[in-house]
Amino acid sequence: MLELVLIKLGGSLITDKNQPYTARLETMQKLVEEISLLSKQNPSLKLIFGNGAGSFGHQSAHKYNTINGIFCDADKLGFCLVHQDVLDLNILLAKCFLQAGLPVVSLPPLTMAVTQDKKLLKADFSIIENSLQAGLIPLVFGDVVLDKIIGGTILSTDTLLAELAKYFHIQRNYQVKLINVGNYPGVYDQNMQVIPHITPANYSQIKAVIGKSDSIDVTGGMTQKVEEFLAISGLGIDCWIIDGNISGNLIKAVLGQPTLGTLIRAF
Amino acid sequence: MLELVLIKLGGSLITDKNQPYTARLETMQKLVEEISLLSKQNPSLKLIFGNGAGSFGHQSAHKYNTINGIFCDADKLGFCLVHQDVLDLNILLAKCFLQAGLPVVSLPPLTMAVTQDKKLLKADFSIIENSLQAGLIPLVFGDVVLDKIIGGTILSTDTLLAELAKYFHIQRNYQVKLINVGNYPGVYDQNMQVIPHITPANYSQIKAVIGKSDSIDVTGGMTQKVEEFLAISGLGIDCWIIDGNISGNLIKAVLGQPTLGTLIRAF
Repeated sequence: MLELVLIKLGGSLITDKNQPYTARLETMQKLVEEISLLSKQNPSLKLIFGNGAGSFGHQSAHKYNTINGIFCDADKLGFCLVHQDVLDLNILLAKCFLQAGLPVVSLPPLTMAVTQDKKLLKADFSIIENSLQAGLIPLVFGDVVLDKIIGGTILSTDTLLAELAKYFHIQRNYQVKLINVGNYPGVYDQNMQVIPHITPANYSQIKAVIGKSDSIDVTGGMTQKVEEFLAISGLGIDCWIIDGNISGNLIKAVLGQPTLGTLIRAF
Repeated sequence: MLELVLIKLGGSLITDKNQPYTARLETMQKLVEEISLLSKQNPSLKLIFGNGAGSFGHQSAHKYNTINGIFCDADKLGFCLVHQDVLDLNILLAKCFLQAGLPVVSLPPLTMAVTQDKKLLKADFSIIENSLQAGLIPLVFGDVVLDKIIGGTILSTDTLLAELAKYFHIQRNYQVKLINVGNYPGVYDQNMQVIPHITPANYSQIKAVIGKSDSIDVTGGMTQKVEEFLAISGLGIDCWIIDGNISGNLIKAVLGQPTLGTLIRAF
């Protein structure tokens, strides 16, 4: 069975969420170096990356309330501005990958997904699949998408990666792992301690104590993330929430070695 | 019948083809101002833009010989570098549109087309169609695409716009016009005089006297452009080759007023 690892580089990790349009280039470069090493040591490993928008996406998205639809000319311009903003960050990241010699292609979700009242209606992942087969590394991101009911909305990186994980696991029979690399050590309980292991069985207890994200994020906080990951963990897809600031931690999670963070799995 | 105008902004117009990675921002801004005026005066007019890569695309494309396929790791990286280079220029242009208040969305051809030994095999234009219907202005560009035989190649803006023109004319019943806005007054004869009118009937005579482009262009010069336009003119799609440096000329071509340049049509 082919192995596929989907890696989300969180907006809070690769940008300064409190400073509009401010990337953390050094953090990006450090992560890309690790990934480059991993990739060279495991040439058959298939990887897909997604990045959050952090302080690039959320400014215009808030101003134009893009998540709730596009109805007037200002909304339409706003939709395009949000797309451009998230693309700006994505391109900074893509260039880090390219400078490290990794064949990364930036693929905007706008071109592959359509929603219906904010829920994913249709997705065509053929360009991602064809890119993987051609030996390239697809890079997606949280993006605006067209919506059949409200004209347009925002599709988060988390939702997109969860859909991709399901697609490659169910329809393409890959062994899939999803790793969320953030600016936090994992899922916190009420005492700011990392919860090491979340399962459907213990989630009802855990839900009440999950700490809330304190930054602007139009696409939902930690609870939504955990619930999206729980839903796919039931299919046999292990999901990690780890700290991208801990050197070597991402490699460990990819390789299945003991990792600091929260593991979300079916049992 | 709905009217659709496809406008190519040539690489030789919006970049300095002799200076690598050098955009002509003032030229872009001037053109975008004209288009903004046109768009406000004709709000029902549907527009699709495409831009050539000029001195942004052709450097890496030559270095890695991307048009002839991707076979080794260096080719794969080259493919991604070309994509990033053409995207860089496209984004500069997209930002000019956005600054002028036009809701332009950049849509990479890589995500919508697949070739077979350099010939277009499959194209899915639904994102372009859906964007138009949502009141947005699609912006495409000459891009790398995946190829079923040689792994990857380059699809020129001219070929893509010609395909889009055919698609919207034949399958969607639009009245379509295609305008190529370049850094030259039209198609030159051997005496550097503009040929005002090319038809299938006079082309055999004209072919021998068409001047050759003297800049780097991996995707073909004027002869290929004229032949692609002639092929679609037979369907009832008028094609203009005009000078983007002449103020007001683009608006005239769009509105069907007397225009300086070369008109390619069926009769």
